[in-house]
Amino acid sequence: MLLCDIGNTTYHFLDGEKSYKEDAKLFNPFLVKERVFYICVNAEVRERIEPLENWVDLSLYIERKKYYETMGIDRIIACEAIAHGVVVDAGSAITVDVVREGVFEGGFIYAGVKAMQDCYKNISAALEYSFNFELDLDRMPKNSRDAISYGYLKPFCTEVLSYGMPIYLTGGDAKLFDKLFVDAYVDETLLFKGMTNIMKKADLC
Amino acid sequence: MLLCDIGNTTYHFLDGEKSYKEDAKLFNPFLVKERVFYICVNAEVRERIEPLENWVDLSLYIERKKYYETMGIDRIIACEAIAHGVVVDAGSAITVDVVREGVFEGGFIYAGVKAMQDCYKNISAALEYSFNFELDLDRMPKNSRDAISYGYLKPFCTEVLSYGMPIYLTGGDAKLFDKLFVDAYVDETLLFKGMTNIMKKADLC
Repeated sequence: MLLCDIGNTTYHFLDGEKSYKEDAKLFNPFLVKERVFYICVNAEVRERIEPLENWVDLSLYIERKKYYETMGIDRIIACEAIAHGVVVDAGSAITVDVVREGVFEGGFIYAGVKAMQDCYKNISAALEYSFNFELDLDRMPKNSRDAISYGYLKPFCTEVLSYGMPIYLTGGDAKLFDKLFVDAYVDETLLFKGMTNIMKKADLC
Repeated sequence: MLLCDIGNTTYHFLDGEKSYKEDAKLFNPFLVKERVFYICVNAEVRERIEPLENWVDLSLYIERKKYYETMGIDRIIACEAIAHGVVVDAGSAITVDVVREGVFEGGFIYAGVKAMQDCYKNISAALEYSFNFELDLDRMPKNSRDAISYGYLKPFCTEVLSYGMPIYLTGGDAKLFDKLFVDAYVDETLLFKGMTNIMKKADLC
């Protein structure tokens, strides 16, 4: 049995304790003979795997009414991984979702690190910097790099900390944000935990 | 005597009480025979007007050491307009600068409305929305448009309000943000006030 989280660029597999990634464009899902429980945000891949009997779409087992209609399945699954806290999934976008005692309270979408650096660069070549994650967020900046780093990081951190709840960091940039949320749990397998929880509820494992 | 704030796209003139704009590409500064006190962030225009004797560059009269080296002259001049408070200049970027009892404390740079909408759109076509400025920022969002609007607006508002100081809104999008900062002063002539203050200090008027 495999678990698989399919994004726009990769298939992210979990096989027991071992996780690995395959390129979404190159990988051939027909070659997998085991049973695969998956979630997928990639429309092209979804079309290819839907007819395959051994690939089981976990999105069909979600209690959808707990969430909102256009909410991405990856966000929903991340929420299903925790009982109480804030999930910060830092990828191309950063999604922040609040779960209070098992109930989804809502969430917001912030720009990811790369998208935001590009955004500043597009405003003006004078704002083309990589963010300073070592910045002291308790002091107002006095140079351009820190001024955009603070603009991106400080309001975001304050918002996430304002909930006063445990913070679960996941996604490709989780380790960057770990510097800012010192008490956060970094868990790159959070989505697999959510998938396992769904499977248990649905008696699939 | 005229005042003129020269940006990337326009010359913004003040003639007594009357203000008007001219296109930065089309307008010919040679045609102005009056004395003009100006600030300029447009390198191309600066080259054209520097040799003109009746055009006086107010950036030469700034006490530069109060600010930081790469800080834009428009931000400096906006700070010179107020004695105490936060200046929010909402243009293609949003600059936020804190002046406490006449002393510049630092500032940060946030993305402007259009730049940020483009940023979300570039992350995913599913995030292409105009922001909802009517959003109730005290509730976590439960739909995609509100999720990006909240992500853009709420952390920013909380940060600006956290200083507990009077808020001065200026720039092309000032009126949009006025909905969020209910006690703010909207002042589209803030830069001209700053210019006048500099002129008074330098005995130029």
